[in-house]
Amino acid sequence: MNVHIITIGDEILIGQITDTNSAWMAQQLNLQGARIVGMTSISDGMEDIINTLARATKQADVVLLTGGLGPTKDDITKKAIAKFYETGFVFSQETYDRIVGFFERLGRSTTEAHRQQCFMPQNAKLLTNKMGTAPGMWFDENDTVVVSMPGVPYEMKYLMEHEVLPRLTERFPMQAIAHRTIQTIGEGESRIAARIEAFENKLPEHIKLAYLPNLGRVRLRLSGSGTDQAALEQELDALVAELVPQIEELVFGYETDSIEAVIGQLLKERGLTLATAESCTGGHLAHQITAISGASAYFMGSIVAYDNAVKENLLGVQSATLAEHGAVSEACVREMAEGVRERLQTDIGVSISGIAGPTGGTSDKPVGTIWMAISDGKRTVTRKLQLGKKRVLNIKYTSNQALNLVRCLVLGMV
Amino acid sequence: MNVHIITIGDEILIGQITDTNSAWMAQQLNLQGARIVGMTSISDGMEDIINTLARATKQADVVLLTGGLGPTKDDITKKAIAKFYETGFVFSQETYDRIVGFFERLGRSTTEAHRQQCFMPQNAKLLTNKMGTAPGMWFDENDTVVVSMPGVPYEMKYLMEHEVLPRLTERFPMQAIAHRTIQTIGEGESRIAARIEAFENKLPEHIKLAYLPNLGRVRLRLSGSGTDQAALEQELDALVAELVPQIEELVFGYETDSIEAVIGQLLKERGLTLATAESCTGGHLAHQITAISGASAYFMGSIVAYDNAVKENLLGVQSATLAEHGAVSEACVREMAEGVRERLQTDIGVSISGIAGPTGGTSDKPVGTIWMAISDGKRTVTRKLQLGKKRVLNIKYTSNQALNLVRCLVLGMV
Repeated sequence: MNVHIITIGDEILIGQITDTNSAWMAQQLNLQGARIVGMTSISDGMEDIINTLARATKQADVVLLTGGLGPTKDDITKKAIAKFYETGFVFSQETYDRIVGFFERLGRSTTEAHRQQCFMPQNAKLLTNKMGTAPGMWFDENDTVVVSMPGVPYEMKYLMEHEVLPRLTERFPMQAIAHRTIQTIGEGESRIAARIEAFENKLPEHIKLAYLPNLGRVRLRLSGSGTDQAALEQELDALVAELVPQIEELVFGYETDSIEAVIGQLLKERGLTLATAESCTGGHLAHQITAISGASAYFMGSIVAYDNAVKENLLGVQSATLAEHGAVSEACVREMAEGVRERLQTDIGVSISGIAGPTGGTSDKPVGTIWMAISDGKRTVTRKLQLGKKRVLNIKYTSNQALNLVRCLVLGMV
Repeated sequence: MNVHIITIGDEILIGQITDTNSAWMAQQLNLQGARIVGMTSISDGMEDIINTLARATKQADVVLLTGGLGPTKDDITKKAIAKFYETGFVFSQETYDRIVGFFERLGRSTTEAHRQQCFMPQNAKLLTNKMGTAPGMWFDENDTVVVSMPGVPYEMKYLMEHEVLPRLTERFPMQAIAHRTIQTIGEGESRIAARIEAFENKLPEHIKLAYLPNLGRVRLRLSGSGTDQAALEQELDALVAELVPQIEELVFGYETDSIEAVIGQLLKERGLTLATAESCTGGHLAHQITAISGASAYFMGSIVAYDNAVKENLLGVQSATLAEHGAVSEACVREMAEGVRERLQTDIGVSISGIAGPTGGTSDKPVGTIWMAISDGKRTVTRKLQLGKKRVLNIKYTSNQALNLVRCLVLGMV
């Protein structure tokens, strides 16, 4: 299945918005085994749309369009498609009833513009859009499928997942495709590759392994193709079961798991509470933890001790420690982790102090020197990172590593 | 000047990366008065590149290509362009010397692949790339300019700013273009529009006003075109001087200023210090403040009091206040702001408590109910926000509003 993606909208061509729809659609289609042969962004112009459609339908089995379906844009995409197929319009009572119902629930009435939105090209099969007013449209002529969707990302994603992808896999039977993602943290991709080299070398031709690194986390994705879906799924499950024990302590989750959600779940299950003491990450660790809805069940709070006086007064770091070792030191993060745990009365305290950059380093402690510690009341464990000079990257990388330290402590791996 | 942008790379077509180059280039070109007629993403394939080039050069005055110049991709873009122009290659000693020098400074030697990189199409004018090894290439044949650049964003941006845009404005003399951006916070775009309606209505034809909203901030951009650059710049300056007093208290900066950098500068200038007490924003406000390098000069720290016990023990919020009014209340944020100011011994304390969502609301206090307060020791001022149900949006929007409260207090506007 060859696919051409067309995004329509002046706001893309003037650079006002970055087209993220195309990459998302390409990802989903690739996971189904489709090949993207081109992506085109064009203006809301009748000629442009018709010419691009003509070219794309010659080149591809499937052409996916997003955008230009809103009432403000005068429905130019719909008109262009009808002109391309040389067809007329028909009123869709079903769509009209749905729109009227949608606005009634909001206590608002509909206008003539909404009624006009319900005239659809005669050869369109309508795809129900539960996220908005404009339905998707499916055309199947001359062996080529054309699908038109709204450009609003969550409406497009809903239609792709619930209507378009299932129909496409039925319309163009492809080989079986399956994927497994293993989420790791704690080692870079080259070290992981070295550890699982034997496993990787004996992978059969039809199974590929990809390393996808992101701020200290590495996703390992196994992708397989074959003729029998059930057999393929089984084969991948067996490979995952073989791979995971080889890097067990690095694996924090599967598929779309995030480290902050995983430690949240762990803490909740074990009835443990957490507090953080942050210097150079400046609140980002707490922000990452509290981005998860329900974090109040295990996260009590954070002391962002940016100034040394705050480290002393609120966390109980001793002046002698700061004078002798400085704020960026093993001794300081140890006292910070123990201090925040005591003062916030939690089971676990975790702390970070370092030089986020881009300036502020010394020959002793260059930019990117970061210490962290974790304490559970019985013992306190420390870690040192040596990162680069990019402030925001350092902050985000360090937050991830601190979350991993929480995971390792709770699981008895430090 | 009509421009077609082509991005080349399999990594775009499989959705592994989102193409952000096109939007950035489109923005820059639009600011120069150019019109983008199309954007196309294609694979690293000889046929694809040649066909797309042929089509684009027919349609546009300028075709900009990025990607496919790296050594790992076998220089397919360069070969495709040479084939398109039916021309041969010539060795660029200048490029070779630059690459050798570049690697010598890194203490590394060059390989045969690097020498091969220095063969260039005969009709290419080379554009020096100070950010990497592959130079940009400028072709000017049959009244159409074709420019090829590396796909690495910072290399492409360097070439666009230093080589391509200056040459294009010389090659295609356009009318004078100028822009002014005014950064505002504190009102939505429709209210701003109502306040400056008279100003907007009397703008001459050649000056446009755009409203660009983002998480509670609204950028106002005046764009003008004309024949005389100096006169146009003067005209825009006069319009800015006329507009700003009408919305004075909303204007926090100009051009690319950020609210966190602006309040940092304000606090530094006046020798004031700041501390924050956060509940529902969970550390995001502190993170936003400390994302600015040098924040330690005025930011002492934050108490992220997620749990009510932390609000009592570390911020001194009274149990009676929590029992009577709850944590999401005017009384609570008042005590939080005063408490953090006292305990962190700062000039200013700012606090936030609310229901970030998506769950946790009551009929009294629905999701999105957020209180904030600011105290300077003499008085404490409170504000209430009523936002939607999206957790991360609520957190970011609220942080911006709290930063604005700091600005208003320091400037004596609350």
